Formats: sequence, C-alpha cells, structure tokens
Amino acid sequence: MYVVGVYDINVKRVAKVKKIFQRYMFWMQNSTFEGSLTQAQLRELKNALKLVTNPKEDHIIFYIIRNEDVVKKEVIGDHHQDPSNIL
Amino acid sequence: MYVVGVYDINVKRVAKVKKIFQRYMFWMQNSTFEGSLTQAQLRELKNALKLVTNPKEDHIIFYIIRNEDVVKKEVIGDHHQDPSNIL
Repeated sequence: MYVVGVYDINVKRVAKVKKIFQRYMFWMQNSTFEGSLTQAQLRELKNALKLVTNPKEDHIIFYIIRNEDVVKKEVIGDHHQDPSNIL
Repeated sequence: MYVVGVYDINVKRVAKVKKIFQRYMFWMQNSTFEGSLTQAQLRELKNALKLVTNPKEDHIIFYIIRNEDVVKKEVIGDHHQDPSNIL
C-alpha cells in the first residue's frame, strides 16, 4: 500500500520523529513523507512514533492508499532536497 | 475528487498561504488541509497560491484522490482544533 505521512510535532521532538520516518519512507518536504509500506511496516512505524510523541501536543496523519495509481500528485515550488542531507 | 494539501512555506508567507487554503479546504493539522474540490476549484486554489509563494523557498504538494473511498486515514495524537480559531 502507498502511504503519505504528515506530522505536526512539538519542536522538542520533531528531529526524533523525522529520524524514525526516514527509516521507513522518503522525505518529500518538511513534515511530509511518502512510501510503499506493508501492514507490518506501518504498524512498526506507528509503534516507534507512539514511543517518542506526546498525544496532547503532537499529531501525525497517515493517508493509506491502496496503490499509487489512484493518487495523482501536483506540486507548487521547485524540486528540493532535504536540507539536512546536504553535507 | 478528494484532495490533501500539505505545505512547507517560509514563515514570512505561511499565514497568507493558510488563509487561502482555508477558503477551499479544512484544516487538519498545521500545514495539512483536506477537502473535496472540483477541477475548477483546485485550479483556482493553485493560482491563488502561486501569486503569494516563492517557488525557490516554498513547496506545496497536492495529493489528488479520485474519491474518499480509496484512502484510509490513521491518526496518532489527540483530536485537536486549529489553535488560531480558538477565540
């Protein structure tokens, strides 16, 4: 299944959340990741995120789409890389 | 069609972008909006956003899904309102 993950995290925890996402999905822009995941991988990712987030302050949404064919993507703005990956 | 809009905007312009999104879609969490739009509404929204954003610094992704039935949504964190709407 194709998954889009978007997060709204307290600044104290956002680096940790980003690192966890990076293990499973691809950075698209700040707070937005995409990738193909199995049910087991998504469960693992969610469990890891629950351990480091505060449900009262942090909020993460997963949009789970059967497959990539049913979603079209349109972008405004130039292609850009994850600034933290540029050495 | 069902649309998820996520944005990564320079702080100087983010309030303006949010206001434009609010005219067309529903706030889900910071930088994330959802809603059913026609082609014409999406075109209008994109044009309005292009007028106030800098493609070199700002980045917006629209995930366009044929209809809501093909996407499942899972959330981590408590339900919360747009903090700027609380009077």
